[in-house]
Amino acid sequence: MTGAQVEPFDAVDVIRTKRDGGIVADDALRWMIDAYTREYVADSQMAAFAMAVLLNGMSRDEVRVMTDAMIASGERMSFAGLGKSTVDKHSTGGVGDKITLPLAPLVATFGIAVPQLSGRGLGHTGGTLDKLESIPGWRAALSNDELIAQLRDVGAVICAAGTGLAPADKRLYALRDVTGTVEAIPLIASSIMSKKIAEGTDSLVLDVKFGSGAFMKDLDRARELARTMVALGTDSGVATTALLTDMETPLGLAIGNANEVRESVEVLSGAGPADVVELTVALAREMLALAGQPDADVEAALVDGRAMDTWNRMIRAQGGDPDAALPQPNETHVVTADETGFVTRMDALPFGVAAWRLGAGRARAQDPVLHAAGVDLHVKPGDLVLAGQPVFTLLGQDATRFDRALDALDGAWAIGSEPPESRPLVRERITA
Amino acid sequence: MTGAQVEPFDAVDVIRTKRDGGIVADDALRWMIDAYTREYVADSQMAAFAMAVLLNGMSRDEVRVMTDAMIASGERMSFAGLGKSTVDKHSTGGVGDKITLPLAPLVATFGIAVPQLSGRGLGHTGGTLDKLESIPGWRAALSNDELIAQLRDVGAVICAAGTGLAPADKRLYALRDVTGTVEAIPLIASSIMSKKIAEGTDSLVLDVKFGSGAFMKDLDRARELARTMVALGTDSGVATTALLTDMETPLGLAIGNANEVRESVEVLSGAGPADVVELTVALAREMLALAGQPDADVEAALVDGRAMDTWNRMIRAQGGDPDAALPQPNETHVVTADETGFVTRMDALPFGVAAWRLGAGRARAQDPVLHAAGVDLHVKPGDLVLAGQPVFTLLGQDATRFDRALDALDGAWAIGSEPPESRPLVRERITA
Repeated sequence: MTGAQVEPFDAVDVIRTKRDGGIVADDALRWMIDAYTREYVADSQMAAFAMAVLLNGMSRDEVRVMTDAMIASGERMSFAGLGKSTVDKHSTGGVGDKITLPLAPLVATFGIAVPQLSGRGLGHTGGTLDKLESIPGWRAALSNDELIAQLRDVGAVICAAGTGLAPADKRLYALRDVTGTVEAIPLIASSIMSKKIAEGTDSLVLDVKFGSGAFMKDLDRARELARTMVALGTDSGVATTALLTDMETPLGLAIGNANEVRESVEVLSGAGPADVVELTVALAREMLALAGQPDADVEAALVDGRAMDTWNRMIRAQGGDPDAALPQPNETHVVTADETGFVTRMDALPFGVAAWRLGAGRARAQDPVLHAAGVDLHVKPGDLVLAGQPVFTLLGQDATRFDRALDALDGAWAIGSEPPESRPLVRERITA
Repeated sequence: MTGAQVEPFDAVDVIRTKRDGGIVADDALRWMIDAYTREYVADSQMAAFAMAVLLNGMSRDEVRVMTDAMIASGERMSFAGLGKSTVDKHSTGGVGDKITLPLAPLVATFGIAVPQLSGRGLGHTGGTLDKLESIPGWRAALSNDELIAQLRDVGAVICAAGTGLAPADKRLYALRDVTGTVEAIPLIASSIMSKKIAEGTDSLVLDVKFGSGAFMKDLDRARELARTMVALGTDSGVATTALLTDMETPLGLAIGNANEVRESVEVLSGAGPADVVELTVALAREMLALAGQPDADVEAALVDGRAMDTWNRMIRAQGGDPDAALPQPNETHVVTADETGFVTRMDALPFGVAAWRLGAGRARAQDPVLHAAGVDLHVKPGDLVLAGQPVFTLLGQDATRFDRALDALDGAWAIGSEPPESRPLVRERITA
């Protein structure tokens, strides 16, 4: 094609339609995303559109078309040649959420390919790749050929997502971050699902979290997001199920990087904290059901060492030594109970912020993380603790960061005379 | 001050507050406008904020603070040394709206200073400066000293607004234009009023138009805009009154530039179309009432030649020759009635678009206008027209543009067996 391209739509018309509560026509919406990727539509125009979407919503069809357009902005992968069913899991992020680590090898044990294309952490929720990089020698970056080979040989891969998937999403996400439009459910859903659909998985299980430590603070919005994403996956031919899970309290006892790997290995050895085991098993059952194995004995694979074998092979395939010692903190600080009683609450968000301030997470994308930093919990809500006994331990490279971490934890936990009402970890299941 | 400035607020927090329907604190809102003027706040952030304002509104206090902040972004003028009361008029724009031309000299006849800092037209509504530039020799640009001297000597000035008034508004207006956020009433009100208040007038009469040819299509929104602006002026110490006037039909019989000057001179000679005379007189009475002369005999000054004398002096003071011939069109095209009957309607918008397409207006700010181009009406709604008689005449530099102008006018007017119900021109009066 020669000469200037004649644009078939006008960004202001698209913005006005959404602003006035209308439905944007399919071809106009596809053009908007494509033209934004080409930088014909300006950031300011997309920001106004995103705010209109946040305040006026999008129809199911609009979200589907927007997601398709974001997929079309980049490459599409395919696992069709593998000869195995592929199942992926995505979590909306939480504090102490290391579930991908035991889950991927556990599911792969049943002959399923589990491609977990993951990211690094930003803010108070940790990143799966950051956790695994605690393991000496392990590398996150794989070529497409390496990814396919490892899926064939080991079944489980946890690696960095390539930049070629849904580049429009990358640009839009950065824009939303600075324009107060992160929280728009249609935009969250299309952001997550465009990458998962472009990745080419056959089926997908979503762990949509709600509560203090989650992106969605309340159950209703988490349910709306889950329904939107399940509809999107279904409409795009990806069998999709979502669990709504509680993120009011950190998951497990370890919050950080190396300590979360250690806890994951405990789960893979048939032990580990009850909540981490429960969620790993629940998600594994959903993944196996989507892959046609609804009756797989998931617990047995944890107890008899099969899942651990797959873990060891998965780590070695990416250069890691699963038997090597993990980084240890140089300094620790133990916080003890002032009184005897039941732990009544531990708010996930401040514990996540404390681990972040200790160096387990990063404030800017280019910052490194301290793999040994974090928080180890010794009790969880409902547990009885005696006066003087440890409640949690701060783990740091040096002691200078403990004060700011303790500031974050001021008022974040409580001891009372009665145990709290127990909260179910898996609250709801959303299916097509 | 040395080193990096520490910003006291965060744009995302300000955007989120408005997005969630809250009230932005005064100092945060002032910072937002100041930081945008300094280009610390990005266009994309201001675009998201503008969309949130459009959809969630602003309180009266927020509009006042925003307007103050836009005034503070530039210089403030003062007419305090003049020794005369100053009164300004602002119209939200319409088709055939040449009222400023007869109005400014008419009011100045009563010893009032009338500084009309005006703009050029963009789109289907013409610009006052474009119209006056039809007069050979007349120049729009005056220095501040020339402006003050002319206000002292003649009383009336119509000239180009300097770029030093409310520069934040200039940047914000350009942004709103491309992001679908022009229609936000708080932003329209602060845009108009920041410039008028910065100009330093003692009092202000607003002609807020509604209907087909107006920016505000319906009366309710025009009323809301008028009330917002009257409150803003009052809060800032500028005595402000608004008239809500009908813009369903073009004002007068001339739509263009030179032909609107000709019609204005007819009004100043005591003749002219009834609607133009009515609105000129109504606005002059409001202006004179604010300046302390509620009983001034406005009609007498039109009939006895005093207003025309002031017009002639005003035009000469800016280099124009009020007796020179005005530009004439090279080509004309007369449209006649197919049947005998009453003109039942003439929609202002398509007539404005037709004049624009003939060259009377501009599509881009840098385009020139054709001063002789436009449309002359021969009848108005309510008039009886005989089959074969002229209804209107297109005026052009050449005949090539007539087809597109006629396309715009397809269905824009009608003839029927009964005259239409008459519509009052001045519908409401809004005061503090």
